[in-house]
Amino acid sequence: MKLSVAGCLLVVALPVFAQDAADKVIDRALTSNSAWETLAHLTDNIGPRLSGSRNAAIAVKYTTDRFREWGIDVHDEKVMVPHWVRGEEHASLVSHNNQKIVLTALGGSVATPAAGITADVVEVGSYDELKQLGAKVKGKIVYYNNPMDMELIRGGRSFEAYRRSVEFRGSGASHAAEYGAVAAVIRSVGSASLRTPHTGAMRYDPKFPKIPSAAMTAEDTMLVHRLLAKGEKVRMHIVLTPKTLPDAESANVVAEIRGSEQPDEIVLVGGHLDSWDLGTGAIDDGGGVAMSMETLHLIKELGLKPKRTIRCVLFMNEENGLRGGRGYAAAHGKEKHVAVIETDAGVAAPTGFDTTLKGDALTAFEAKTKSLARVNANRFSTEGETGADTSPLTEAGVIGFGFVPEPLHYFDYHHSPADTLDKIEPKDLSADVAAVAALTWILAN
Amino acid sequence: MKLSVAGCLLVVALPVFAQDAADKVIDRALTSNSAWETLAHLTDNIGPRLSGSRNAAIAVKYTTDRFREWGIDVHDEKVMVPHWVRGEEHASLVSHNNQKIVLTALGGSVATPAAGITADVVEVGSYDELKQLGAKVKGKIVYYNNPMDMELIRGGRSFEAYRRSVEFRGSGASHAAEYGAVAAVIRSVGSASLRTPHTGAMRYDPKFPKIPSAAMTAEDTMLVHRLLAKGEKVRMHIVLTPKTLPDAESANVVAEIRGSEQPDEIVLVGGHLDSWDLGTGAIDDGGGVAMSMETLHLIKELGLKPKRTIRCVLFMNEENGLRGGRGYAAAHGKEKHVAVIETDAGVAAPTGFDTTLKGDALTAFEAKTKSLARVNANRFSTEGETGADTSPLTEAGVIGFGFVPEPLHYFDYHHSPADTLDKIEPKDLSADVAAVAALTWILAN
Repeated sequence: MKLSVAGCLLVVALPVFAQDAADKVIDRALTSNSAWETLAHLTDNIGPRLSGSRNAAIAVKYTTDRFREWGIDVHDEKVMVPHWVRGEEHASLVSHNNQKIVLTALGGSVATPAAGITADVVEVGSYDELKQLGAKVKGKIVYYNNPMDMELIRGGRSFEAYRRSVEFRGSGASHAAEYGAVAAVIRSVGSASLRTPHTGAMRYDPKFPKIPSAAMTAEDTMLVHRLLAKGEKVRMHIVLTPKTLPDAESANVVAEIRGSEQPDEIVLVGGHLDSWDLGTGAIDDGGGVAMSMETLHLIKELGLKPKRTIRCVLFMNEENGLRGGRGYAAAHGKEKHVAVIETDAGVAAPTGFDTTLKGDALTAFEAKTKSLARVNANRFSTEGETGADTSPLTEAGVIGFGFVPEPLHYFDYHHSPADTLDKIEPKDLSADVAAVAALTWILAN
Repeated sequence: MKLSVAGCLLVVALPVFAQDAADKVIDRALTSNSAWETLAHLTDNIGPRLSGSRNAAIAVKYTTDRFREWGIDVHDEKVMVPHWVRGEEHASLVSHNNQKIVLTALGGSVATPAAGITADVVEVGSYDELKQLGAKVKGKIVYYNNPMDMELIRGGRSFEAYRRSVEFRGSGASHAAEYGAVAAVIRSVGSASLRTPHTGAMRYDPKFPKIPSAAMTAEDTMLVHRLLAKGEKVRMHIVLTPKTLPDAESANVVAEIRGSEQPDEIVLVGGHLDSWDLGTGAIDDGGGVAMSMETLHLIKELGLKPKRTIRCVLFMNEENGLRGGRGYAAAHGKEKHVAVIETDAGVAAPTGFDTTLKGDALTAFEAKTKSLARVNANRFSTEGETGADTSPLTEAGVIGFGFVPEPLHYFDYHHSPADTLDKIEPKDLSADVAAVAALTWILAN
C-alpha cells in the first residue's frame, strides 16, 4: 500500500502533458459526483429559471458562490433580459361539449382578451397552404399541424427534425396575423407526449398585429385534426394571460482559470443558466451548466495549469432573447477566443461534438483527441450547429464545438414540464463532464 | 365476378353452426370500422364522461340511439350515481422557492380549505411505516411512495402491479387521518409519466376525519423523495377545490338480441360508459363499450340468430361507485345468466380471456373456442379478475370472462389526461371486437 501511494504521488509530481492530463480529467470526472450535485441543486432546490424570474437570480447567485467556494475566479456580468411571465392558460372546444384542450402559451405571446378568444379553427400544414387560404383565415384560429419527423429522430437527426418543425412556433403567429387570424396554435414540438405541452420562444414580425400563440399537446392537435377531417366545424375558446414586464436586470456568470503561458488566449466552455418555466430545466440546460462548471472545478481540483485561459460562461437568456450570448460577444468579442465549446443539447451518453473545424484542420485536431474515445466522445461532425449562445463568436470566425449527447430522447422532454432531473442517468452526466472537460483541456494546451 | 357473388350468397343461405358463425363474426369484425366510429364519437365528439356529468348523459343518449339505429332492442335503466366534480388543483413547495408540484385530486376527495393546506411532508412506503411514525405525522402531509413494480409490468403482470400500488390510492387518506395527518398524497399509479397525473377513486373510512387526497406525478414524487433523502425539510402548499354534489340520475344502457331457443338464458357482454374526467376515456373504457356494442351489431348485421339471448350492458359509474354494476345485479340477478363477459382492460392486441371457469369445465369449453386462435385470443387464464361491473354476478356464481388485451402499456395512460383515442390502433380494436364477439356467439349457442 505504501509503495503504491508513493508511486501515485510521483506521477502527480511529474510534468503533465496535455494527453496525460486529459486522461486524469476523465478519470476524475467519471468518479466524481460534484456535477450531479450542481445539477440537482439547480433543478430540485432552485427549480425553473426563466429569465427575469426570482429563481433565475437565485441560480446566478448559487453558481457564482459555488465557483467561489471552489476557489475559482468568478464575476457576474450584467445583462438586461426580457421578463415574460406565464399566466392562466386554458382552452376548450365549444363545438364539442367544451372538451378541454391542453395547451401552453408560447414564450413572448401576448395575452388574449380577459374573456378569451372564441373562433373557428382552420388547419394548415405549411405557409404555402396558409397563403392559399389567404383571407379565409380572417377571424379564425390558425392551427399549424407540424409534427416532428419521427423517422429523422430515430435516424439520429433529432435536431434537424426540430429545426423543420419549430419554424411554425417561431413565426407562425405573425404569418397567420398577416391574413387576419385572431390566434395561432401549433402542435407542441416534441417527440413524445402524454398530453404534454412543449413551450418555446416565438417572435412577432412588427409589420403585423400581435396575436396570441400557444402550443397544444400532440393529443389535442390530433383530436382537432380528426374532427376537421370528419368535416366538422371546430370552434375553440382560448384564454391566455401572460404578461411582458419591463426588461429585468440579470447576469452572465463568468469564471476562469488563467493560462500559465498564453493567458490572453481563451478557450470558452459554457451552457445557459436560464430555463423554460414549465419544467426544472434539467436537460435544457442545467446539465450543460453542470458540465461547464465542472470542467473548471476538475482542473482546479487536480491542480492542473492550462497554458491558455479556460473561461466558463453561464449564459443568461438563451431561451427567449439570447441577450446573454449577445452581451458576452459585445463585451468580449475583441479578446482572442481560440475556441468555444457549448453544452446545450441535453444529458445522455456522449457521442462527440459538432464543430466548425473542417478539412485538414479538423483531421489534425482529431489526432490530438484520442483520449475522448474512452467516453465515446471522439466523433466530430461538421453538419450540426455548435450552439446559440456562442453563435455571435463562431459567426465571427472563432472555432466552435457543440457537445452532442445521444439525441434520441432529447425532444421527448425539451421545453416541457417533464424536463426534470429524473430523466438523467448520473453515469451519463459523468461521462459528459469527462468529454467536455477533456476537450477543453486539450484545446487549452 | 357474378359467380363469386352468387357463391357468397349461397354460403349465407346455408344453415349456420356456432363455429362457422363465429368465423363469420370474426371476418366481419376484422373489416368493419363501425366499432372505431363508436369509439371515436364517444371520445372525440363527446369527451370525458364522469358519472353525473352532462357528457355522461350525452353518452347514454348516443349509445342508446346508436343501438336503435342498428335496429336492436334497447332501453335505459335508471341508476343514481355519485356526482363528484373536480375543481382547481395546484400545489407548490414553499420550502423550495415555491416550485410547482403537479398533482390531481383523487376522485371523491374532499376539498382543502379555500386558502389551501400548508404543511411539512412525511414520506412512508407502507402502512407499517406509517404506524411506526404514529403521532409524528400529526399536522403533516403524508406522502405514500408507491411506485408500480415495473418488473411485474414488463413480465405481463400489469394488473398485479396495479393492485399492489393502488391500495394507497384507495385507503391512504383514512390511514393517514387516523394518525392526525392533514392531507395524503400518493405517487400517481401509472407505468409512464411525462409529468402526468393519474387520478382514480378513493374512499373514506367513516371512523376517521376526511382529509384531502391527491396524486402527484411520478416526477414530483421523485423530487420530494430526493429532497427528503438529502435531509431537507419539505413543506408543501396544496389547494384542491372539488365538490361532491347530490347523487345524480343516470342510467345503464341495456340492449339485447333475444335467443331463438332459450331466450331466458342470457349471455351478457359489457363495459362501462363512464370515464375519468382528465382524459377522454378511450382505453378506459370507450374501447370496451365499442367492443360490447359491436358484438350485438355484428350479429344483427350478419342476420345471425343466437339460441340464447345476448345482452349488452353499458354500465354507468364503474370508476367511482360501481352503482351501475350493483344496480344491474339488483334488478337482474335473478335472471339466468349463463355467462358474463366484461371488456374493461383497454384496447391492444388480443391475448385471451381471464375466466372463472376451472378444471375440466374450462378444458371442455376451450375445445369449442378454436376460432379465437385466428385473432390470438384463445388463451384462457384463471388467475386474473374478470371485471368489476360483473363482479356482483360472478361472486354469485355466474361464469365470468374478462377480455385481456396485451397489458404492457395500459397503465401508461390509465386514468390520466393521456387516455385519448390516438393511443389505439384501429386494427387492434377490430381484433378485439372479433375476439369478444366470437366468444359471445360461442357462449350463446
